[in-house]
Amino acid sequence: MMIYLDNAATTKPSEAAFRKAESFAMEQFYNPSALYKEGYALQSELKKARSALLCKVADENAFEWVFTSCGTEADNQAIFSFAKRGNAVTTAGEHSAVLAAFAELKNRGVVQTRIAPLQKDGRVDVEKLLELIDEKTSFVSVMHVNNEIGAINDVNAIAKKVKAKNPRVIFHSDGVQAYGKIPFKLCKEIDLYSVSAHKIGGLKGVGGLIKRKSLVLPPYLIGGGQESGKRSGTENVFGIKQFQYAAEEKFAALKEDYQRLSIYREKLWQGLDKEIFVRLSGLDGTPYILSVSAVGLRGEVLLHMLDDKGLIVGTGSACSSNAKTRYSKVVLACGYDEKTADGVLRLSFSSLTTEEEIDKAVEILNETGRELKRRMQ
Amino acid sequence: MMIYLDNAATTKPSEAAFRKAESFAMEQFYNPSALYKEGYALQSELKKARSALLCKVADENAFEWVFTSCGTEADNQAIFSFAKRGNAVTTAGEHSAVLAAFAELKNRGVVQTRIAPLQKDGRVDVEKLLELIDEKTSFVSVMHVNNEIGAINDVNAIAKKVKAKNPRVIFHSDGVQAYGKIPFKLCKEIDLYSVSAHKIGGLKGVGGLIKRKSLVLPPYLIGGGQESGKRSGTENVFGIKQFQYAAEEKFAALKEDYQRLSIYREKLWQGLDKEIFVRLSGLDGTPYILSVSAVGLRGEVLLHMLDDKGLIVGTGSACSSNAKTRYSKVVLACGYDEKTADGVLRLSFSSLTTEEEIDKAVEILNETGRELKRRMQ
Repeated sequence: MMIYLDNAATTKPSEAAFRKAESFAMEQFYNPSALYKEGYALQSELKKARSALLCKVADENAFEWVFTSCGTEADNQAIFSFAKRGNAVTTAGEHSAVLAAFAELKNRGVVQTRIAPLQKDGRVDVEKLLELIDEKTSFVSVMHVNNEIGAINDVNAIAKKVKAKNPRVIFHSDGVQAYGKIPFKLCKEIDLYSVSAHKIGGLKGVGGLIKRKSLVLPPYLIGGGQESGKRSGTENVFGIKQFQYAAEEKFAALKEDYQRLSIYREKLWQGLDKEIFVRLSGLDGTPYILSVSAVGLRGEVLLHMLDDKGLIVGTGSACSSNAKTRYSKVVLACGYDEKTADGVLRLSFSSLTTEEEIDKAVEILNETGRELKRRMQ
Repeated sequence: MMIYLDNAATTKPSEAAFRKAESFAMEQFYNPSALYKEGYALQSELKKARSALLCKVADENAFEWVFTSCGTEADNQAIFSFAKRGNAVTTAGEHSAVLAAFAELKNRGVVQTRIAPLQKDGRVDVEKLLELIDEKTSFVSVMHVNNEIGAINDVNAIAKKVKAKNPRVIFHSDGVQAYGKIPFKLCKEIDLYSVSAHKIGGLKGVGGLIKRKSLVLPPYLIGGGQESGKRSGTENVFGIKQFQYAAEEKFAALKEDYQRLSIYREKLWQGLDKEIFVRLSGLDGTPYILSVSAVGLRGEVLLHMLDDKGLIVGTGSACSSNAKTRYSKVVLACGYDEKTADGVLRLSFSSLTTEEEIDKAVEILNETGRELKRRMQ
């Protein structure tokens, strides 16, 4: 039996949600844009899903939900829709869906891009972020929970400060690692918030962009006018309903999972051999992620050895594994040296993680770390 | 038991393909970008899927496959990536994923847009299309099978003629209603070809953009660099594998379905009361679509009456039901009057359509048409 501690990359979908949603794949398979009652009924199912997913994190009177095909699409839609003039500001800790989109903005030369540095704990340096914002800033994107270190940015407080400095800024937050995991309600200063299904027991291929109701969001996919014209393309009803059901489960367990995983995270850390591992994740980060470094060892080598012993972990972000850089940019941005960045292991949890798995993971991690260290000497 | 004749809007997914792919949702749920062997193994599953889906319609040495979230995304990516200078040409018969994207191009004012007219049978007027192409044309998009009338454009021949006139043109075809249904191989003059899973027994939320290998395709979603950098976002492995399996089934039955549905289409037409229905679809159109008009009656009213009697049909394109126009633009573009356009019913078939359903549909259509006609007098 494998122990899966790479839940920040993706989670096992909720089987109950899958079974509950299955009829929307195989029986109610109609096109929701169709005019007959079987198609039209799906519009109300989509509406229910939007409402169920939105109400957990936002006031439904002030915000609305747009389905996308993934978190990356939500981030891209936010950025390319609103970072159109002057300058756009983000942080060095962002997911590549934001950072690569900012690099593209820079390429296009339409807006100036500015990247705020991180503190050692992985949170953005808010003072320095605010210094980058001026009267020409049109767009600011600050992620909620960092996907590599697990640092939590207080995006509500940051959005308020940003708007106090320039009320015309459109403020976006990538909430992919926060939604369904961290107790949180969007404040009115946040204009856009990105979400992904497969990080909380949903299926891959479904995401959401939460937007302030009064904000006019241009479509990123253009065509039949689905999602009130904000996202064309036949709606993935099955995936959307499975997301709804999985999120309902996840939000019902949110507080309990939060407390339980906070304990597991500390138990895991306490069990680790401090001769081998140093801790990167702060105490006040998300309980879902413990990032450590086996300084002097190669994280990737460790990852493969652990895999062979039945423990699946990550190194930084799965989504940047296609990149050419060997080291996690985010870990370097926290101020760690390359040796530390090279030894990073990201251990990330889900609702399904058990205490037995944590205990066994400690054993395997220590044993494997020691083994590799011996080999290196 | 409902009779479902709106398969051009969406098809019932293949249950066998769904069951076969299910392990990629619930067991092999890993992130394909992950470095451990369980994640990496999914890369080869994605590769197999790309190859299986591509080889049916194109030479794998000359073309490659990029997964998208839907046909609309594939169309949008093709258009916004290559219609960047001079003028772009398309046809009046296109799906809204193309026509609305062309309207957006026009709005942006970067390229001039030109729309070629249709013949009465729904095919593009090739002579007039060619007249619109000049040395400044950068992009041409001609759909393969029309989704409302079912007319088949000989896109291979058209692409050759277009390239003969201007070899620098990037030629795209929307193949959503053709892929898996019409015997066809892409010629080398076609640069880009869009495909959708849910029109042939796949799930909603999966599409593909076939591209000439030597063509540099800019990403439309930017981030982690998935799909060799051409489409970021965690891959929807389950949806992709279900599409592969559904397409394999569909291509295995392609010829048989083609012949069988050609017979059904004619049987359906022959059975219809000619006092009520006129035929819009030509004999040489796709066997999957029979478009008729109950001239003088309202198609939408008929649709609801038919629905109540257990027969599900379409009126024009489901995807344009969100539009404000009452009449099918495509039917008007064929040269029919508004009365004819208002009475359109689109009857569309799938592998699952049976002869009994056709016989029963004839009965219900005639009975309902007569009933509404009486009411109108």
